[in-house]
This record gives sequence, C-alpha cells and structure tokens, in this order.
Amino acid sequence: MSVLVVGSIALDTVETPFGKVEDALGGSAVYFSASAANFHPVQVVGVIGDDFPDGALDLLSERGVDLKGVAERKGESFRWSGVYSFDLNTRETLDTRLGVFADFEARIPEEYRNPRILFLGNIDPEVQLNVLDQVESTDLVACDTMNLWIDGNRDALLKVLERTDALLVNDEEVRQLAEEPNLLKAAQWVQDRGPDTVVVKKGEHGVMLVDRESVFFLPGYPLEEVFDPTGAGDSFAGGFLGYLASRDEWTPEEIRTGLVFGSAMGSFAVEDFSVHRLAGVKMDEIMDRVREFRQITSFEVRAPERQGA
Amino acid sequence: MSVLVVGSIALDTVETPFGKVEDALGGSAVYFSASAANFHPVQVVGVIGDDFPDGALDLLSERGVDLKGVAERKGESFRWSGVYSFDLNTRETLDTRLGVFADFEARIPEEYRNPRILFLGNIDPEVQLNVLDQVESTDLVACDTMNLWIDGNRDALLKVLERTDALLVNDEEVRQLAEEPNLLKAAQWVQDRGPDTVVVKKGEHGVMLVDRESVFFLPGYPLEEVFDPTGAGDSFAGGFLGYLASRDEWTPEEIRTGLVFGSAMGSFAVEDFSVHRLAGVKMDEIMDRVREFRQITSFEVRAPERQGA
Repeated sequence: MSVLVVGSIALDTVETPFGKVEDALGGSAVYFSASAANFHPVQVVGVIGDDFPDGALDLLSERGVDLKGVAERKGESFRWSGVYSFDLNTRETLDTRLGVFADFEARIPEEYRNPRILFLGNIDPEVQLNVLDQVESTDLVACDTMNLWIDGNRDALLKVLERTDALLVNDEEVRQLAEEPNLLKAAQWVQDRGPDTVVVKKGEHGVMLVDRESVFFLPGYPLEEVFDPTGAGDSFAGGFLGYLASRDEWTPEEIRTGLVFGSAMGSFAVEDFSVHRLAGVKMDEIMDRVREFRQITSFEVRAPERQGA
Repeated sequence: MSVLVVGSIALDTVETPFGKVEDALGGSAVYFSASAANFHPVQVVGVIGDDFPDGALDLLSERGVDLKGVAERKGESFRWSGVYSFDLNTRETLDTRLGVFADFEARIPEEYRNPRILFLGNIDPEVQLNVLDQVESTDLVACDTMNLWIDGNRDALLKVLERTDALLVNDEEVRQLAEEPNLLKAAQWVQDRGPDTVVVKKGEHGVMLVDRESVFFLPGYPLEEVFDPTGAGDSFAGGFLGYLASRDEWTPEEIRTGLVFGSAMGSFAVEDFSVHRLAGVKMDEIMDRVREFRQITSFEVRAPERQGA
C-alpha cells in the first residue's frame, strides 16, 4: 500500500541571494513525492494546465512516483513567484496565478482509495474534506495547512482536523490557529480538536513533536549555505511519512526516527533550487545525515560533584 | 578553586502577564551566582548603592556564595524596570537607572585572583578588560555581551574576545556581532576572533554550541507557563559554568552535559520572579529535569525498509 499525496503542482519562479530559477518544478505534491519516493511508493493527485512543459514530471516518474492521478486541464498551470530576503528568513510573494488549480476538485482514482498513508497538502480545506470523503480506508491521515485557510476557511479546517491523525504545521500557524502563543499549549489545543500527533515546524530551529505520551525536539540541520528554502516543509513531510510507510509498526520510537528522516530530507531540499537535490539524493547520503543528527543532539546524563573551594 | 563572576547586582521592577514585582533582587551576577552555587562555590564582584535593602543578598550567602567582592558605594543602586509582552517574547524597558553601577570599576580582591572559571557578565567591555588584567590565572574565561556594547564599544569587545575561551551570546547578538545571518557562520566568525567555544542562546528554541570539533543543539525546556523570563541567560550560564567547575576534566562530553545543566537552571529561573525558584531548587529536581531533557531529545537511528506497493 502506498502513500497518497494530494496537493499542488506548480511552476515556481524563485529568486534567492544565490540565484534565480524561472518556471521550475514546484508545489507541495511535487516536493512531497520527490522526497517520499526515496522510502516508499507514492501516488499523486493534482492538476496541471495544458501549458505544462512536456516531460517536466519525468524525474518523479523515473523515481517510481505514480502520476496517474495528475489531471491535465485546459488553461494555465499554477504559477508562483517569490523573492527571499538576504537572510532567507522572510520571503515576498511577487505573483500567484492559480490557473487550473483554482477549480481543482481532486478526483481520487479507484486504485488510490486505500492508501496506507494519506497526506493532504496545503490546499483549501474544502478540497481536503472532499478527498477524505473519497478515500475508503487508510491507516494514517496527515495534513498541512496555512494562514490563508486558518483565517479564511476556519470551519472547514476544523472539520478536517476532526478526521486528521497528524497535523504538520508551522510555529506561527499553530499559534494563529490556537490563538495561543505558547507552542506546547497551542499543540495541545490542536490535539483537543482531533489529531493525536502535532508536528510543529520551526524553520531553522527544527521541529517539535507533541503526541499523547510525550514531547520531542529535533534541531534544524546546521547548513552553512541554504540555497532555496522553498519546499522544505513538504520535503520534510515526504521523508517523515515515506519512512513511516516503509515500517510495519508505528511505535513512538519509529515516529521520532521518522521525524529525523523528514528533517534530513528537508535539509537536502534547500541545498538547491526546485527538487534537483532531492531527486538525486542517495540512501547512503540520507543515512549519513540521519547519523549526523544523532551526533549533534546526543549527550550524557551525569551528576555534578559538589566540591569545596 | 571557585567560580568568579563579575556583573550587575540590581533591583528589578518587572511586569509580566502573570504579575508584577518591585525592586526585586536581580542582575547578571545575582542570577548567575544563585544558579552556579548549586554546583560549586561562587565568588561575586559587583557594586550596590547605600539604599540597597538590608539582607537582600542573604539568600545568596546562605547558599554559600562569597559576597566579599560586593562593594557598597554612596548613591543609588542599579535599577531596571521593564514589561513583557503577552507572549513573553518581547520586552520593553521602561526605565534604567545605573546609579553606582555607572562608575563600576570592578576591583578584584586578592583572594579572588586565581579562580578556576571567570565569568564576565554582560557589562561594559572596558570593565571586562580591566577584570582580565587583574586576574592572575584561570582555566577558563567565559563572557556575555549585548547589542549595546556590540554597537557602542566594538573595539573593546573584540579585545575581550581575544582573551575569551567561551562566548555566551543571544542569536540576534551573534548575528549582529558577525554581521552574518547564518548562525553557524556567525559562530565561526567569533571563533576566528579568539573563543574556541561559542554558545548561542536562542530563547525558547534552546542553545547551539559550536566548538572546534563539533556542533551541538539542545532545545529549550518546554514549559507551559513561563512566569518571568528575566535572568534566564545568566541562570543558564551559572548552571553551565558551575557544573563545569565541579568536574575535573572538560571533555567535549562534559561540555555538552554542562549545557544541559545550564538549560535546566534557565528553565527553573523563569518559573518565578527574581531568583525565588533558583534559590530553592533541590539537586533532585535538577537531575530530574536533566533526565527529561534526555527524554525529549533522544531517538534511534534505523534504516528504512523499501517495499513494493
């Protein structure tokens, strides 16, 4: 059983202090599947316009991503363009053209309706609900969202949460959603609305996992050069859920390990534009980075020895 | 051999969403010594005015802190007052009255001149240099600073760094000091100016350690209620350096463990106003919190098992 992702497929024009790309492959479903495919078979549901460049998705299908759920519609493909600040911590959206994505209905093919894991990318919660209605069975529903829906379609989002097992969300977004500045309390607020698991993405500060039993923190991987932060969150989600899909049992330990794989994939994603780095990464490199996460976080518990002056 | 701290002794008027205190005991030397005294004998050099309340420092001396280096001068004691925002992430200084602290010269008594560890609290780097000139020998010089000195007395600060082993500094401050947004590169910039060890304090996001061999991250302790963030950084420094002073050898492992003790002490400090919580904390509670840090950061390295659909 595969991982099913429903999300955007976009052509991104991105400028960072390190360069610029035009109409590069992007979108939540693209980053997610390029990342998750390193661990497990992935099925994609999305939409492209009839202007979408031929063969632009080949690097996904070459890695075994099933694209039968990608519909082509008459009209323009979804395009986003943005520019990042010098420190890469803020970005300005220059242009968003939804094109065919504006009327995206997310029809789930018959053979996709029993995925092991369903990832609802950051799209209108009405579409997320529609997807949930079409899926017949799944072991885990994970979901992303953003301020646009928290402000603009809160009721539908709360209905999605009732049917979600794991919410993956930015720190600012979870604070906004819960109207609570304390991250731990904000995550608990989300748990009260449905999800057992809340993963708070804190950018360079890493991730916080809040589940029913415990809290877990992982730092961001310390890169000296972040080339392009676009897609880091979806690449993280792909690594996390792709790893989990590859495992039989989801113990608390497995979930933590999954977050480390997710963080490793997020760190690869930002090393180049688009999915270039993700699509070429080797399992050896992924494992090396996972072990590095261990090196930069482990310590020994010792007792002090109180001494005289 | 003891830990010597040179820093401010203040009367703080603090308002947080949880309450208000007036003329409460504060200042970098106070928070540092209340914290470090849990681990090792501490000597304090500082100054108070003749209006300083009788017995206000007793809770330090009762814990074995040596206050012979605290001079009383004619005039007003250093007073700071501030108010924290609802989310405690920003604070506004309402009033700063330096009083006798304005002419603080930091005379180090004979018997203090060979400490095992010297901590230069966040004071004018000219005073820090003066202290370094008076100290005859020490195994470790640690130092704190702030934007006021980075902007206003950069040359003297760079001279201090040449003679510093460990710089303890906030993330925004190290970015400002190095004029470099990437924290890892900013820390390396500092290392090029002297300190082998750079500890970047990131508030709720924890600490990053950069030494010559490796990088280490520890999250902030996830408190549901932060009562008063004042003094967290100095309490962290006290736990870190107090622990190290209690140990014979400073291996990389010991330094990491020291950061965990520091973070534990910082988390206790913010649970109450002034040093109330710090002064009453038991070693059992400290050890429990250190073990909790381990629980919230540990994970297992496993390999994914790639499977068919």
